[in-house]
Amino acid sequence: MDTRPYIEKHKQRFIDELIELLKLPSVSADPHFKKEVLMTAGAVKINLEAAGCDTVEICDTPGFPIVYAEKIIDESLPTVLVYGHYDVQPPDPVDLWNSPPFEPVIQTTDIHPDGAIFARGACDDKGQMYMHVKALEVMIQNDSLPCNIKFMIEGEEEVGSVSLEWFLENNKEKLANDVILISDTGMISKEVPSITTGLRGMSYVEVEVEGPNRDLHSGLYGGAVANPINILSQMIASLHDENNHITIPGFYDKVEELSDEEREKMAEAPFDLEDYKKHIGIPEVHGEKGFTTNERNSIRPTLDVNGIWGGYTGEGAKTVIPSKAFAKISMRLVPNQDWREITDLFKTHFENIAPKSVKVKVKPHHGGQGYVTPIDGIEYQAADLAFQETFGKKPVPQRSGGSIPIVSLFEKYLSSKTVLMGFGLNSDAIHSPNEHFGIWNYLKGIETIPYFYKHFTKLYKEHKQ
Amino acid sequence: MDTRPYIEKHKQRFIDELIELLKLPSVSADPHFKKEVLMTAGAVKINLEAAGCDTVEICDTPGFPIVYAEKIIDESLPTVLVYGHYDVQPPDPVDLWNSPPFEPVIQTTDIHPDGAIFARGACDDKGQMYMHVKALEVMIQNDSLPCNIKFMIEGEEEVGSVSLEWFLENNKEKLANDVILISDTGMISKEVPSITTGLRGMSYVEVEVEGPNRDLHSGLYGGAVANPINILSQMIASLHDENNHITIPGFYDKVEELSDEEREKMAEAPFDLEDYKKHIGIPEVHGEKGFTTNERNSIRPTLDVNGIWGGYTGEGAKTVIPSKAFAKISMRLVPNQDWREITDLFKTHFENIAPKSVKVKVKPHHGGQGYVTPIDGIEYQAADLAFQETFGKKPVPQRSGGSIPIVSLFEKYLSSKTVLMGFGLNSDAIHSPNEHFGIWNYLKGIETIPYFYKHFTKLYKEHKQ
Repeated sequence: MDTRPYIEKHKQRFIDELIELLKLPSVSADPHFKKEVLMTAGAVKINLEAAGCDTVEICDTPGFPIVYAEKIIDESLPTVLVYGHYDVQPPDPVDLWNSPPFEPVIQTTDIHPDGAIFARGACDDKGQMYMHVKALEVMIQNDSLPCNIKFMIEGEEEVGSVSLEWFLENNKEKLANDVILISDTGMISKEVPSITTGLRGMSYVEVEVEGPNRDLHSGLYGGAVANPINILSQMIASLHDENNHITIPGFYDKVEELSDEEREKMAEAPFDLEDYKKHIGIPEVHGEKGFTTNERNSIRPTLDVNGIWGGYTGEGAKTVIPSKAFAKISMRLVPNQDWREITDLFKTHFENIAPKSVKVKVKPHHGGQGYVTPIDGIEYQAADLAFQETFGKKPVPQRSGGSIPIVSLFEKYLSSKTVLMGFGLNSDAIHSPNEHFGIWNYLKGIETIPYFYKHFTKLYKEHKQ
Repeated sequence: MDTRPYIEKHKQRFIDELIELLKLPSVSADPHFKKEVLMTAGAVKINLEAAGCDTVEICDTPGFPIVYAEKIIDESLPTVLVYGHYDVQPPDPVDLWNSPPFEPVIQTTDIHPDGAIFARGACDDKGQMYMHVKALEVMIQNDSLPCNIKFMIEGEEEVGSVSLEWFLENNKEKLANDVILISDTGMISKEVPSITTGLRGMSYVEVEVEGPNRDLHSGLYGGAVANPINILSQMIASLHDENNHITIPGFYDKVEELSDEEREKMAEAPFDLEDYKKHIGIPEVHGEKGFTTNERNSIRPTLDVNGIWGGYTGEGAKTVIPSKAFAKISMRLVPNQDWREITDLFKTHFENIAPKSVKVKVKPHHGGQGYVTPIDGIEYQAADLAFQETFGKKPVPQRSGGSIPIVSLFEKYLSSKTVLMGFGLNSDAIHSPNEHFGIWNYLKGIETIPYFYKHFTKLYKEHKQ
């Protein structure tokens, strides 16, 4: 089997179809885009039908719908469930984009000499999700589909997959599968394919500090009244100690400690600190004492303020003590840390450290568990072999700092293992202005995925005997 | 002389004229209101002419124009220069106003049973400035104007009177006077008239903390890269120690220390801490250890964050490490602290405490010196006697926490003393939503001001002999 000729012949159409999908601003976090999010679900349905699925339905949920599709060729063959999401992160700050976030353009970059598609969602996750739709088309047209395939494409991943648990619980039958395949992560580089074996969990909260019942003149009241911004700053500052350890009592209790061997193995992954700093333009890295940069953003939990606001932020000067100040705070968690427990620990601690002079509210937003996939299962081996077929080299297992909270939900409700075959790069600027996805990566994904099905089906059959 | 009959006869018109002036959104801080600010200068000119000034001119400056007017009745008589400003603070947060900030309405409140005018600028300073315009009318119509009067009404007070120094330097002749009279402060209560004898200076700066060259995914980079919001919070927090002393080296070096006698005298001013807390709805006061609430907001310097912003502040959640975070910070200064020197100390310190992992910018905004008026001069005595005539009791001298930076400029360029006769109340919510000015206070000001001219002229003549 060789997937390349068909892809070579149809690649321009594959690119054009993705570009059409990227024009839809499916921002799930912002109610103003509700209509566009729903339109995007419809577009995904049409594409799945065109690719050759037998059944495609838009399933209602308490939130945005989930697009479900299937191609069942033989009940006796294994079934792979492909997960992806059609919603995207908000595009702001929009003024930092070189081209409008929902008007895709193709530009070449040093890393992408063949060009990359610039648009919100290009990589995360429309581009990577659509690789699977096109991979299905390739297999059907080449008459090389070796197993059954189901698709579950949701529209709330960027807001914590709030309806997914409900959907899994109510559709176990329909979603029954032998393995779950996801492309929503990255690889180390175009030369170094990798398979993500670990993900961080997350707890996302919003906090409010209230002082006086109205904005006050900072001259008449300054110095005598607690300023909510100063207090919020002090409270945020106190969440890390001088070694950048998080100070929330109990926060580290369940954190998995890696053995020296494991840490040494991690350290073998190619990494150039100077390139890293240069690429994101920072004078110096910054993080938890006693851990390397790669450890800090993969095997260690974190606490980051994702947004802060309060007082006068317009042009010029306003001398005011605001009534309230706010922050959005997310904590990345590692396997064994329970996100609900961490959220409670945060809430209790944050309320405890508030001085008497203010009132504090903590509103839990959403969260998810961390996860580690075993590298000795047939699903990992199948992915490993697939990469070898198209990259000519063994992929490196890597821990990702990102979160795909639903992976542990899949294990809980569908008792399935998940394989994370990512084709994005760190430089793709996901969640940032100018997000893009290399055309080479996009086509390489479409080329590689069919080999996963081939090897998984083969290993599955051997395994069964 | 009795000013009341004329005021009683014309009070409705006095109120209507002020309401017209308040309809003009003269927000000097926001370039979008440039046209309206200029229109307001024109409206002030017309009102000064109508009140009976001989010469009225709109004087150009590098910024917004200054309205100058005069009524010279006899060169041998003393000349009083009235200062005020026709610009106002930005109205935001607009959604917290009970009525639109530039559509004045009259409502009664517990403190203002006769009603108060609600509008941005009602008290600060259009209402208090216009008292002087009407006081002139009263004296001219009653044929009781005892001296020469000049008016200097500027349009940049809320943005630091940026052009005023230039104007003073270039118009010393024209502005020559024997005393400067200002109503841009408050009194302790309707039952306790007071004269402001001290003002705090100010240094206003804007800071920027820059981390990565673009927003980053907080999962992929969280824990390994300095988050500008966390860093800014830590830097802000470190500006106060556990006793709420400001930690900037040299900050307190020139702070005037009051004697125990002076502090005891201050403590005699009527003040109810429970009422104070209840009125602004705070559970507890907060401030520098070792000082009372009244001391903290008058004789002690402060550092307040007036605005902070960075990262995602929209609806829902975005998991991002922003490239930059910003804050607007103002420091209230006491007499002897030089605002330029303090601004430099802040800049140096803030740059010094920045960790290597970020870049920091400090942009000085504006500032002004603190000031203390002697209470043994004839200008203070004249104000004291004026209050006695209309309130039937001796006013209390008080230090205000606010800043009128230009008072020290007047001393420098015009070698004049300034008298601060304020008729506003702390509850007037200046700089806040629902700013208002009591009709009783407005009319009481118009009634009282003519007595200042009467007594000042009398004392001036005695003094000359």
